[in-house]
Amino acid sequence: MATLRALPRITPRAILRPQCLYRRPNSSLAAPDASNPKLQQIDASKLTITKTTTPKELIPHDQLIFGRNFSDHMLSLEWTSTHGWLAPNITPYQNLSLDPATCVLHYAFEAFEGMKAYKDKSGNVRLFRPDMNMARLNKSVARIALPTFDGPAFIELIKQFCQLDSRFIPSARGYSLYLRPNMIGTQRTLGVGPPGSALLYLIASPVGPYYPTGFKAISLEATTYAVRAWPGGVGASKLGANYAPCIVPQMQAAARGFQQNLWLFEEVVDGRKEEYVTEVGTMNLFACIKDKKTGQPELVTAPLDGTILEGVVRDSILSLARERLVPEGWKVSERRFHMREVCEAAEEGRLMEVFGSGTAAVVSPVRSIGYNGGLISCGLPEDKEAGPVTQRMKDWIEGIQYGEEEGHPWSWKI
Amino acid sequence: MATLRALPRITPRAILRPQCLYRRPNSSLAAPDASNPKLQQIDASKLTITKTTTPKELIPHDQLIFGRNFSDHMLSLEWTSTHGWLAPNITPYQNLSLDPATCVLHYAFEAFEGMKAYKDKSGNVRLFRPDMNMARLNKSVARIALPTFDGPAFIELIKQFCQLDSRFIPSARGYSLYLRPNMIGTQRTLGVGPPGSALLYLIASPVGPYYPTGFKAISLEATTYAVRAWPGGVGASKLGANYAPCIVPQMQAAARGFQQNLWLFEEVVDGRKEEYVTEVGTMNLFACIKDKKTGQPELVTAPLDGTILEGVVRDSILSLARERLVPEGWKVSERRFHMREVCEAAEEGRLMEVFGSGTAAVVSPVRSIGYNGGLISCGLPEDKEAGPVTQRMKDWIEGIQYGEEEGHPWSWKI
Repeated sequence: MATLRALPRITPRAILRPQCLYRRPNSSLAAPDASNPKLQQIDASKLTITKTTTPKELIPHDQLIFGRNFSDHMLSLEWTSTHGWLAPNITPYQNLSLDPATCVLHYAFEAFEGMKAYKDKSGNVRLFRPDMNMARLNKSVARIALPTFDGPAFIELIKQFCQLDSRFIPSARGYSLYLRPNMIGTQRTLGVGPPGSALLYLIASPVGPYYPTGFKAISLEATTYAVRAWPGGVGASKLGANYAPCIVPQMQAAARGFQQNLWLFEEVVDGRKEEYVTEVGTMNLFACIKDKKTGQPELVTAPLDGTILEGVVRDSILSLARERLVPEGWKVSERRFHMREVCEAAEEGRLMEVFGSGTAAVVSPVRSIGYNGGLISCGLPEDKEAGPVTQRMKDWIEGIQYGEEEGHPWSWKI
Repeated sequence: MATLRALPRITPRAILRPQCLYRRPNSSLAAPDASNPKLQQIDASKLTITKTTTPKELIPHDQLIFGRNFSDHMLSLEWTSTHGWLAPNITPYQNLSLDPATCVLHYAFEAFEGMKAYKDKSGNVRLFRPDMNMARLNKSVARIALPTFDGPAFIELIKQFCQLDSRFIPSARGYSLYLRPNMIGTQRTLGVGPPGSALLYLIASPVGPYYPTGFKAISLEATTYAVRAWPGGVGASKLGANYAPCIVPQMQAAARGFQQNLWLFEEVVDGRKEEYVTEVGTMNLFACIKDKKTGQPELVTAPLDGTILEGVVRDSILSLARERLVPEGWKVSERRFHMREVCEAAEEGRLMEVFGSGTAAVVSPVRSIGYNGGLISCGLPEDKEAGPVTQRMKDWIEGIQYGEEEGHPWSWKI
């Protein structure tokens, strides 16, 4: 621990100068292992596999419920601050035995990812941009003093896991094996500090298409009485901490007939209170708006300013839009936009489409947004469930995920 | 689920009116059991006790570390959304067996309390304002869709637990049995929604005085690059979610020689950026400031505006100050105050004392605050570790906790 003696003291009558006399923190908040790269290493070659002796029966496709049933096995790795990552294990899916003082249960030392394994027409198993999930999980865990890890080595382990449990990956388009990597702090003490031990594990749940009967447009309620994230907070990280506080506003929206709530962020700009669109909590949000003057269509989503999750599908949509919509005359923007702009566009017939994006549904068309006591119609005709951009994005991304668009670098054949 | 059909639609060319056509949310966000009081009931008479067959050895007083060692038993109650709270159990302290998909491990469905059991000179066991802890825990759990519970019935169970494990309560002044009630969501699904089952449990750790050799003044680093809480967020609730994100800033402060960090909240007031003092993350903060004009001493702490924890010791200090310091000419204020005010008071010799308050240390004197590259001296002479108000508050509150101030309503003899 550094000493305070070297610092200038502000004593009575002394002047407080805004000098920078001690080292300013980095903008990237470092994990406890940051100073020792050895603590991040994973040796995938040391994997031990213990196969189940009681394989589960596969659940019929039409009975799959998201995150309710799991495959035969789980992958897990323990970490200690003295030894780093220990040898990985694949074991039968089983309960964790945790001391009631374990820090994950008290102080939310937990960060996770959502990703999927797909089966293509030839029966190959594929992952979609797993490098993005590894990078994000490393960023998330570092923010809460959990250990970072070697992403490529963990992907190697995920591949072996997927091979072993590949019978749980349904072959039909729209079906997949949802993969849930999760890291928890396992130190058994109530002292609030960086965990001296952690567990990184992965479980897998076979899932069907989010909308089994095709797209179904949803309605969102814009939430103004609660705030999900704040600049300087942890809203950009995939932490457990960001989820539990979102449930009650989501339940309240549901009680009023909305499928999800839309989180706004209020700010006074030029003396005027504006409510900025951020995200849905489980999805990022996109709007297609025609320019008031030129009529140019614009695909817009909130920027990565620390208050929204850095969605892998969000990033994919932006890339595809820049590659495939810009040549058609579209403008693609990551910029702040507020509800007044959305309302005005809706009133003037310039709001073409709104959709959410996320791993679960890929894209999710939005019919209307409840806001300030009214309902904003998002441009979808009454007899349609998805607009053309929403539909094309779904087709493009699923085409890549299921290997139909051959050789695309986002699809990793394993 | 309500239907959307009754709501007015904002269609192209329609005008968005800020009418209130659907029910506005309550300011108090309700728990899932709010509509059914039966789900909150606890029947303390149904308690079953299974005593340990391997009692632990008591740890010598000088080897006690906060939250590291636990008493022989634990108290636990399960809840389901269909049956409410099941019969309570006291069992030997033991591991929890949790499915790896349990929602507490992914979405931070967890809220806790910190309280203590004291042994007075006559050997009686005493609790300090346990009703405040129960009220706060109920508020915390409701905010994250965990079930609320009958506070007085749970206190009854805590009393029986303390009687059973009373040998773990050291008799010396300054020593106590730290009690940790904790509630976790136990539903085994990755779907993000209100947990259909929960576990409320209590574990206990014998603890020594926070400063075994008497007071020791600490130094705080004011954190400006990260934000703990914000209006409309959950900073006022004792949720796990509020703790993990605080560790890295705390580690960074420690690396620069500070014991804790002080969370500020920035706001522009009359065109000027002000950094308001909020809390320390593990403590509330008090300052004693002499009025610039009148010289009247003021005890000031941040108000309960949703961004700070509603500390039991904070509330106790305010009550005692109103009762015992106001007659001496003090002003007692719960109001917003910013770093510019603190700096100005320090520069002009008007900053008399600063201290933190919390269950662990009762009060914790602050020597200096690192801010903007300088160090604010908080009015403590170099050869002293605590100011007079800090010392008196400690004596008053400990006097009540240990039953030395007889018959005080805050001390519950069990």
